[in-house]
Amino acid sequence: MNRSFLNDLLASVASQGRYLVDLARGQGGGAAEGGELPEMARRLLSGRGEASGTALARAFLARYAGLPGAERRQALLALTEALSPDPAEVRRAYETWASSPDAAALANLARAAEPPRQELVRRLNRAPGGTLALVRMREDLLDALPAHPELAAFDADFTHLFGSWFNRGFLVLRRVDWTTPANVLEKVIAYEAVHAIESWDDLRSRIEPPDRRCYAFFHPALVDEPLVFVEVALTRETPGRIGDILAPGRRSLAPGEATVAVFYSISNCQRGLAGVSFGNFLIKQVVEDLQRDLPGLRTFVTLSPVPGFARWLQREADAGHPEAAAALAAGPDHPGVTALAARYLLEARGPAGRPLDPVARFHLGNGARLDAVHALADLSAKGRSASLGAMVNYLYDPAAIEANHEAFASDGTVAASPAVRRLASVVPRTPSRVA
Amino acid sequence: MNRSFLNDLLASVASQGRYLVDLARGQGGGAAEGGELPEMARRLLSGRGEASGTALARAFLARYAGLPGAERRQALLALTEALSPDPAEVRRAYETWASSPDAAALANLARAAEPPRQELVRRLNRAPGGTLALVRMREDLLDALPAHPELAAFDADFTHLFGSWFNRGFLVLRRVDWTTPANVLEKVIAYEAVHAIESWDDLRSRIEPPDRRCYAFFHPALVDEPLVFVEVALTRETPGRIGDILAPGRRSLAPGEATVAVFYSISNCQRGLAGVSFGNFLIKQVVEDLQRDLPGLRTFVTLSPVPGFARWLQREADAGHPEAAAALAAGPDHPGVTALAARYLLEARGPAGRPLDPVARFHLGNGARLDAVHALADLSAKGRSASLGAMVNYLYDPAAIEANHEAFASDGTVAASPAVRRLASVVPRTPSRVA
Amino acid sequence: MNRSFLNDLLASVASQGRYLVDLARGQGGGAAEGGELPEMARRLLSGRGEASGTALARAFLARYAGLPGAERRQALLALTEALSPDPAEVRRAYETWASSPDAAALANLARAAEPPRQELVRRLNRAPGGTLALVRMREDLLDALPAHPELAAFDADFTHLFGSWFNRGFLVLRRVDWTTPANVLEKVIAYEAVHAIESWDDLRSRIEPPDRRCYAFFHPALVDEPLVFVEVALTRETPGRIGDILAPGRRSLAPGEATVAVFYSISNCQRGLAGVSFGNFLIKQVVEDLQRDLPGLRTFVTLSPVPGFARWLQREADAGHPEAAAALAAGPDHPGVTALAARYLLEARGPAGRPLDPVARFHLGNGARLDAVHALADLSAKGRSASLGAMVNYLYDPAAIEANHEAFASDGTVAASPAVRRLASVVPRTPSRVA
Amino acid sequence: MNRSFLNDLLASVASQGRYLVDLARGQGGGAAEGGELPEMARRLLSGRGEASGTALARAFLARYAGLPGAERRQALLALTEALSPDPAEVRRAYETWASSPDAAALANLARAAEPPRQELVRRLNRAPGGTLALVRMREDLLDALPAHPELAAFDADFTHLFGSWFNRGFLVLRRVDWTTPANVLEKVIAYEAVHAIESWDDLRSRIEPPDRRCYAFFHPALVDEPLVFVEVALTRETPGRIGDILAPGRRSLAPGEATVAVFYSISNCQRGLAGVSFGNFLIKQVVEDLQRDLPGLRTFVTLSPVPGFARWLQREADAGHPEAAAALAAGPDHPGVTALAARYLLEARGPAGRPLDPVARFHLGNGARLDAVHALADLSAKGRSASLGAMVNYLYDPAAIEANHEAFASDGTVAASPAVRRLASVVPRTPSRVA
Repeated sequence: MNRSFLNDLLASVASQGRYLVDLARGQGGGAAEGGELPEMARRLLSGRGEASGTALARAFLARYAGLPGAERRQALLALTEALSPDPAEVRRAYETWASSPDAAALANLARAAEPPRQELVRRLNRAPGGTLALVRMREDLLDALPAHPELAAFDADFTHLFGSWFNRGFLVLRRVDWTTPANVLEKVIAYEAVHAIESWDDLRSRIEPPDRRCYAFFHPALVDEPLVFVEVALTRETPGRIGDILAPGRRSLAPGEATVAVFYSISNCQRGLAGVSFGNFLIKQVVEDLQRDLPGLRTFVTLSPVPGFARWLQREADAGHPEAAAALAAGPDHPGVTALAARYLLEARGPAGRPLDPVARFHLGNGARLDAVHALADLSAKGRSASLGAMVNYLYDPAAIEANHEAFASDGTVAASPAVRRLASVVPRTPSRVA
Repeated sequence: MNRSFLNDLLASVASQGRYLVDLARGQGGGAAEGGELPEMARRLLSGRGEASGTALARAFLARYAGLPGAERRQALLALTEALSPDPAEVRRAYETWASSPDAAALANLARAAEPPRQELVRRLNRAPGGTLALVRMREDLLDALPAHPELAAFDADFTHLFGSWFNRGFLVLRRVDWTTPANVLEKVIAYEAVHAIESWDDLRSRIEPPDRRCYAFFHPALVDEPLVFVEVALTRETPGRIGDILAPGRRSLAPGEATVAVFYSISNCQRGLAGVSFGNFLIKQVVEDLQRDLPGLRTFVTLSPVPGFARWLQREADAGHPEAAAALAAGPDHPGVTALAARYLLEARGPAGRPLDPVARFHLGNGARLDAVHALADLSAKGRSASLGAMVNYLYDPAAIEANHEAFASDGTVAASPAVRRLASVVPRTPSRVA
Repeated sequence: MNRSFLNDLLASVASQGRYLVDLARGQGGGAAEGGELPEMARRLLSGRGEASGTALARAFLARYAGLPGAERRQALLALTEALSPDPAEVRRAYETWASSPDAAALANLARAAEPPRQELVRRLNRAPGGTLALVRMREDLLDALPAHPELAAFDADFTHLFGSWFNRGFLVLRRVDWTTPANVLEKVIAYEAVHAIESWDDLRSRIEPPDRRCYAFFHPALVDEPLVFVEVALTRETPGRIGDILAPGRRSLAPGEATVAVFYSISNCQRGLAGVSFGNFLIKQVVEDLQRDLPGLRTFVTLSPVPGFARWLQREADAGHPEAAAALAAGPDHPGVTALAARYLLEARGPAGRPLDPVARFHLGNGARLDAVHALADLSAKGRSASLGAMVNYLYDPAAIEANHEAFASDGTVAASPAVRRLASVVPRTPSRVA
Repeated sequence: MNRSFLNDLLASVASQGRYLVDLARGQGGGAAEGGELPEMARRLLSGRGEASGTALARAFLARYAGLPGAERRQALLALTEALSPDPAEVRRAYETWASSPDAAALANLARAAEPPRQELVRRLNRAPGGTLALVRMREDLLDALPAHPELAAFDADFTHLFGSWFNRGFLVLRRVDWTTPANVLEKVIAYEAVHAIESWDDLRSRIEPPDRRCYAFFHPALVDEPLVFVEVALTRETPGRIGDILAPGRRSLAPGEATVAVFYSISNCQRGLAGVSFGNFLIKQVVEDLQRDLPGLRTFVTLSPVPGFARWLQREADAGHPEAAAALAAGPDHPGVTALAARYLLEARGPAGRPLDPVARFHLGNGARLDAVHALADLSAKGRSASLGAMVNYLYDPAAIEANHEAFASDGTVAASPAVRRLASVVPRTPSRVA
């Protein structure tokens, strides 16, 4: 009859989390309290919303989930419009502050400028399963954004609130292994974005052997939903090819004998949480935990793709760079691949002066160092077409992370090993442009 | 070797929660990374804070927790000052919007008006145990506020963030009973604010018998810390005296035979979360859960104190009301106690026109009805001195809650039973004033 | 630092259970304490075994697990021989009792006649993971038994102890669903003995839909190992074909609308626990739990194979029964299949006068009634060859179970519906023999 | 809706365990299936018992629990008598074996000599909460035994089965601390048999400080019931007085700085499990776990009472030993206390030649060494009256445990430090007798 105290916590959390799945499938008893969504939103924001406890929020989310896609989009547009700050009130608040600039008046101005949509989102979150329903709503919003740029304001509200709610302090790091529930594992299979997991057997070969690890961040309100996960191989040498890690039938290593931890795949899972950064914290936490558990580990390094490389080569070739054109024509076997990739990673910059390559941007921004570039390292279809088969090691040296990051943040300096710098220097530059 | 997936979640959450206790006791390795707190705050808000992961937040909180009280207060004042919005930037953002009033410019204005303290609090929360440390920091702030009204701005930042973080959707309802861990139970003993719990045996008599229930809200990041709890007695009649409920040696009732659920005590636990309302949701959730578990229950009612009654009587007596003076002189036995209490509850209003009595304000604001007033109902020292022995039943009738709340919210109408109205009408009013 | 009390229980139990897997793989540090197994057994049974705590038991099991199969078999033979009761002591004890027949002397005789192997097994069980290691040892023993009938004595020791240790009171019923850990689910796939599970998708279709259930018994010392499991379909009619239940793409039913619970597969998982009966308790417990959870259920019935049918038909045909020969020749489409199957189930008896069909024996022995026989019900290869496509419903009517069982146990009376009896009566008997 | 797999295990186990408490309170719906207990027992042992699943066992236990004490005693006597082995059958089985002495015949003899009471106990255990109910039944039996020695046979059945069921392999070691559920902690308070725990605050001072530990063995079927627990103090020196350990207000030590683990109290909790030994395994397991967790620990030692010392002194004094008489007269301050205690512990032997002192017998039997004797070490009333204030350190040296135990087991040799031997040698022997 009595249930264990801590189990109750989990049970509640888990059933709340699962409830939203039912909502999303439209089984949430939606029709109950009808009405148009903007009208329901207004009621929810009024005092009456308070009295109804969570019932109104629940009804809103069920109704939203039950709508066809086009109507959901209409609802988002209507809410963006209807729940904007009142310009007159903003003006009044500003003038009050301007005439008497104290902290209270400034706080009042901030309040007036905050879109009521944010309070709507907070109130919707009160419903059981609300958090997951809101993450799914944001997915709809992101889908609609290209065609409806006016939704950017609502999107900013989501980004702001999700950044606060999915704060590192509320995340829980869990190891994912073969004792993990199947409903979580199937999401790992689905969300793996770097080296696709082909089957349950393939998954098992990545999480069960003693020299393999997988860690994910979870949020207590989304218990079955990983937010981001990283796959780690424990080895004795820094690998230069993904095949060394994923080879079928390889012999596994006793973890105590490993000296290198290789982060060979990191995947975000929730499109609805785009813009909230977890990966940085995940890698650092995993490094910390592995150092404590396996004191024999000396090196923490990635084996990463170079996803923008082929596209950049194409632009270089188009711009008249003969080596680039030659490499593109020859493919992964071309002898200049590593030098060109080194050049691309060190010098190709985007509009804000940051590395063009998104993976490089992520790891260098975290304070890692560009340590080595390998050719013929990923010969999958995707590896060939996007990266010309090249892969990269980014080194996470705990002693250098802060300085690397600082230099990168202040003036875009890329931390790189002498070998990579040398490699980059052997390629002649495209005459007309730098990147 | 492997640990259960869901246990890991709990274990992580629990150990994070407990970590903060260590911080609060100053064992958190504080001195490690020194420096003044405002300087550390600035670093934490800079890019460098990003690179350090959670280390800098941890160091800040440890250092803060290790300071003596006066220096903690100085730190709060310094942070309030140093991390205010930049007025020049607010002005610029306003003018940009005023000249071209689109959503992006408005969002930019909101951002400029948001105090950087909020981002500081969010970043501090990244540290293990950060959430609890921040709740404790808010306690310091509330202590300092009377002497330092300029801290109100920082306090508003906490209220805003805590309101978002402790959203109903993130709270977990758990039953507290005799299988609950002792470290949680001791907090129930400590935090009981209505009818003090004298000993572990007293506690046991409130949570172990089959006709007694206790429920609390918890937050996953504060696992051992109840936020608010309510004590419930299952009975066959609405009680008019607290002694009926707390009688030592009483026989307990089989839950299936109960028809009435009596909420006889509700206590907030975290001073640092003042201003975040949980009680409303707690009562409604418990009503829902009890209805489902025990379909024999027909009535959901409180047995509540009237904490402002004696103070009001004194003011009435001072203003020349002879009945008030007589009642004060005679004490709980005075025959006019119930009529005066009914009058007080129905008519005594505070500056905003809301009931003067805080307990009445809470339950009426939740949509309950003032159902009955009892004399000689709480003869404890506190009951006599504050309430003249009177107690009140507020009725939670699920069918009427929304309408009651709406009427109360729109024009202050108090829902009350005819009997209570009649009772109030027999007392002559103080000539000079209504309340 | 501190861990939740109840989690610790689980964690310990789980890691003990898993430890034995390591043992079984020979990674248990076997060589540590060497020596021949019978010699180690003697030490373990001596006082010295006491002092060593669990170390000696651990060493024994690791050593055993590390041996090649033939040597394991030799060890079992040697232990059977070496640890038999001492005949001289049995004689002495008997004579003491015969001359002075009191309870103490009788107890002493029982003790003298108990093989020391039983105490060996109890002491081996002290090692972490010992229980699973012993279940695996029994598997070896069962494998060796046909060639070495002298092992029967040791086998009887195992049966006796396992019957006591795996007592219903120590078993735990758990639902198996899509949130169950993958390492448990893969065992369900492996152990399904009736309707093979082809893939993870197939498994999912049997445990995730709301109108499907799977329950298993577990033992706390073997946490990841199901002992026996049953698959249940919730329907509105008693099905007559397995295809109705396993149809891909079928629409699922809301559980509240179901009136029939169909037990369509029950599989024992641990060969090493052969002879310990769980299935009886499992079905009754699941009936009880389903009745409580889903009060709309009215009928509890199996859909079962008739695994001995074809073999019996062959014997009948060989004995000159023309209908049997015709049915065998025609296969599942032969119009006499149901009548012949009814006759087989009602009348074909084994040496002890109990039904020849093992599935019939199990369900009738549990107190179920033979309710209906269906032709063309299982057209899988196995269904065709063993059962001629026939399947059977055994009805578990809680009101009749005890009486059915009693009649069956006392004189072999088979409870059957009038329809089945009628069906059986239309087939002429083989002249020469009844069954 | 779905519940976590592993939580379900726990929940089931816990609720089964608690169910038996309800039984014990006679709320188990007892009257349901009436009849006399021996008659119910016979039905339970018959096939009909099989069919009823667990219902009949449940009814039996509820009926038994509902009887007044005298009738429970009558029932135990009746069961002892009614369910004894059948002498004629034993004789037949013996003669069969004698004439043809193979393993099967011997197994049959063992079966015939096994009292049917054992099967009764196994079948009763099938009921929810059965294990606890049986432990309570054994308590009744032990209470009745002195007046009814014929119950010894039934008691032997319990000892045999409980020894098998509470095998070390099924026990779970858990740390007990301030996060342990209150219903478990209250049992620790109640069962502490060495140094009484006065209050919840006293309990807290023994389990919460970082330099204090408490560990207990639990059995999954009795989840809230500790079987045996040990209290440990982490110190920097081997203590000679209990006051050093239990001093109120003492400063606690960081566990990492401790070099000595002191076992200062070990208590069995379940009278109904008398004769099943846990303490030996508990101490060894805790030593192992502490060594792993706190590698700084060098010494594992007890601080133990000498409970039989005063009684022995009295016998010595009565026998004319003048020092003994003098010490008894002077009490704890007498200068010969330690020498006499050393003599007592080294030389006073019971009938079987084992140490007279039960605590000495336990620790020496486990392989510990008698290391030091202290006077004025326990000045509580009990310490003064039973031990003349003396306490003892028994040293658990992992390297010597096995040899110590072997010597003790083979010829009663007591392992003792030279200092203790010297001490014992200074006291003149009582002329007439050694111990």
